[in-house]
Amino acid sequence: MRSASGKRNGYASNHGGKSPLKNIHQYRLGIVGATGAVGRELIHLVHDRGFPCSELQLLASARSAGRQIQQNGNSWTIRETRPDSFDELDVAIFSAGSDTTRRLAAEANRRNCVVIDNSSAYRMDPKVPLVVPEINSDALTRHQGIVANPNCTTAVALMGLYPLHRAFGLTRFFACTYQAVSGAGAAAMEELKTQVLQWSRNQPLTARVFPHQIAFNLLPQADAFQPGGYTKEELKMANESRKILDLPTLKVSTTCVRVPVFRAHSIAVHAEFEKAVDLAAAREAVQSFPGTILVDEPENHRYPMPIDFSSREACGVGRLRKDDAFDNGLAFWVVGDQLWKGAALNAIQIAEAMHERHILRI
Amino acid sequence: MRSASGKRNGYASNHGGKSPLKNIHQYRLGIVGATGAVGRELIHLVHDRGFPCSELQLLASARSAGRQIQQNGNSWTIRETRPDSFDELDVAIFSAGSDTTRRLAAEANRRNCVVIDNSSAYRMDPKVPLVVPEINSDALTRHQGIVANPNCTTAVALMGLYPLHRAFGLTRFFACTYQAVSGAGAAAMEELKTQVLQWSRNQPLTARVFPHQIAFNLLPQADAFQPGGYTKEELKMANESRKILDLPTLKVSTTCVRVPVFRAHSIAVHAEFEKAVDLAAAREAVQSFPGTILVDEPENHRYPMPIDFSSREACGVGRLRKDDAFDNGLAFWVVGDQLWKGAALNAIQIAEAMHERHILRI
Repeated sequence: MRSASGKRNGYASNHGGKSPLKNIHQYRLGIVGATGAVGRELIHLVHDRGFPCSELQLLASARSAGRQIQQNGNSWTIRETRPDSFDELDVAIFSAGSDTTRRLAAEANRRNCVVIDNSSAYRMDPKVPLVVPEINSDALTRHQGIVANPNCTTAVALMGLYPLHRAFGLTRFFACTYQAVSGAGAAAMEELKTQVLQWSRNQPLTARVFPHQIAFNLLPQADAFQPGGYTKEELKMANESRKILDLPTLKVSTTCVRVPVFRAHSIAVHAEFEKAVDLAAAREAVQSFPGTILVDEPENHRYPMPIDFSSREACGVGRLRKDDAFDNGLAFWVVGDQLWKGAALNAIQIAEAMHERHILRI
Repeated sequence: MRSASGKRNGYASNHGGKSPLKNIHQYRLGIVGATGAVGRELIHLVHDRGFPCSELQLLASARSAGRQIQQNGNSWTIRETRPDSFDELDVAIFSAGSDTTRRLAAEANRRNCVVIDNSSAYRMDPKVPLVVPEINSDALTRHQGIVANPNCTTAVALMGLYPLHRAFGLTRFFACTYQAVSGAGAAAMEELKTQVLQWSRNQPLTARVFPHQIAFNLLPQADAFQPGGYTKEELKMANESRKILDLPTLKVSTTCVRVPVFRAHSIAVHAEFEKAVDLAAAREAVQSFPGTILVDEPENHRYPMPIDFSSREACGVGRLRKDDAFDNGLAFWVVGDQLWKGAALNAIQIAEAMHERHILRI
């Protein structure tokens, strides 16, 4: 159900403070990190999807406190995120980095506020469910106050991999990513814009957010390098996939690459399965999976592309074919909005799934 | 040996016609397709590398005949490529597409002109050597008038793969490419520029060369789709790698993707080997291989990038690490100039290797 009115889901009522809930299913929702790239999308999606909230509080660092945010005809004043911010909230979606989560998630829980966290702080904690609702929403029933939202590339890759896993039993996959700059935040999106404008004016290109020029270039690095030579981002995809799919021995190897694209991540996947694969059954599995669209008419140059899957809820799967280097293999290409399915949308879908199961509480 | 003077290698003497060779090692060289993106680089590299030619003829289609080409202080008149063009040539480097090669390579051979061909026309022909000189120059001794230059992505990928194969014995690899627009020709490079300028002026973006917008986008397609769902480009990398490495049963699976980068191709490779891999030995193998540079200091954000490997002879290998999804696996990232090692440079290196072996003749 979507709401056309901002008021119906409490979108414009964050000045209401402690007003009693008229409806047991209306939540006082907080967004921690509301000024970031994901935070802005959260505000939009809470409105657009009609999430049942009686009140929406926008929280951020002390530096941003007092700032006005206008969106969808509504206006909010940013408040500083402090432990007592959560006294007035039932649910908080955190999107402010691991440090903020580590510092404040327990404080929120202590005040009976459920935390849905977009950082990597608790993703691998056995007590914390790590959830893509289309895949493992049952894990939500075991929550103890914190639910983790997966890494963006993991979420998008699994939207293509999971329906195939269900059909054929995944044993191993290789993934090479083509990651949009949005994954590095709003400032990174500005940096790509700035560099392209500098290039068009024959000016020298300046890099601040990324270690190198990103316009007309590729950076085979997302997040920090770890011992062994993989980046954190690459290890996240391996470890988080194992946890979400409940396949602790799954073999995974990935190369994560930043590309000069604004906000949709693309991933080339080469996957091996237990059972013999059948291409028609694979197509059917992808096509019938909620949240994933099959765009696969190569003869008409139709395949998923970042420009077509930006600001879009569904992920697109295409280039589905038997993988020539595995006995039971499939290769495919999957694209999804990094800020939506890779972050804000999945977080709200987690809240929605918990609401439907009546477990969006501590 | 490089020549500072254009005259020494006959660069400016294409009006000399039938003048007798003063030096047995000076060739009358023709470039077929001289007005294309690769052709222009060939003119530059013949000069820059001091290839021993007494005469340089620039040939192209009838449409381009009469056009003047200025480069490195020299000037040529483009002539139409006709069968009798080869009467006056000892060697012709073809870079004008498969149709031109199929139509004219035999005519050239009949006139005692050796053909080094950049198209895919004869690459898989058992009578035609397919050569990356650093890898399999011995195959040149079996030439019968035509030598094929590999596909650009294959050449760049193998510059990283071959030294590792020599050390550990390659059995399988997965490659995902990040291909520059130069691979689609000069008009494609112009199209990316035009689209970015249109974007910077808030104008609608127009696509003519590619089926879709390439600026800020990705196209999971290079060349035409084939039955089975792979593109020609993807199958070329598999088939040409098998032929160049002389590994007919090598397992290969690739996804080829066009990215908004001007002229260097990047490839993420996940490879499996017969023998146990050792990272120090792998680094040493890459580092000591001619034509490949190891750029692998992740702690300092140092890895190969397209902007650093454009207009550069060497290919760069980095992100070298054990592959977690294979028992004996290595993953790496390789970058090389599509127009140079992927095309023009490799073709001239073939001519040089044949010259050194005194087999640049029919």
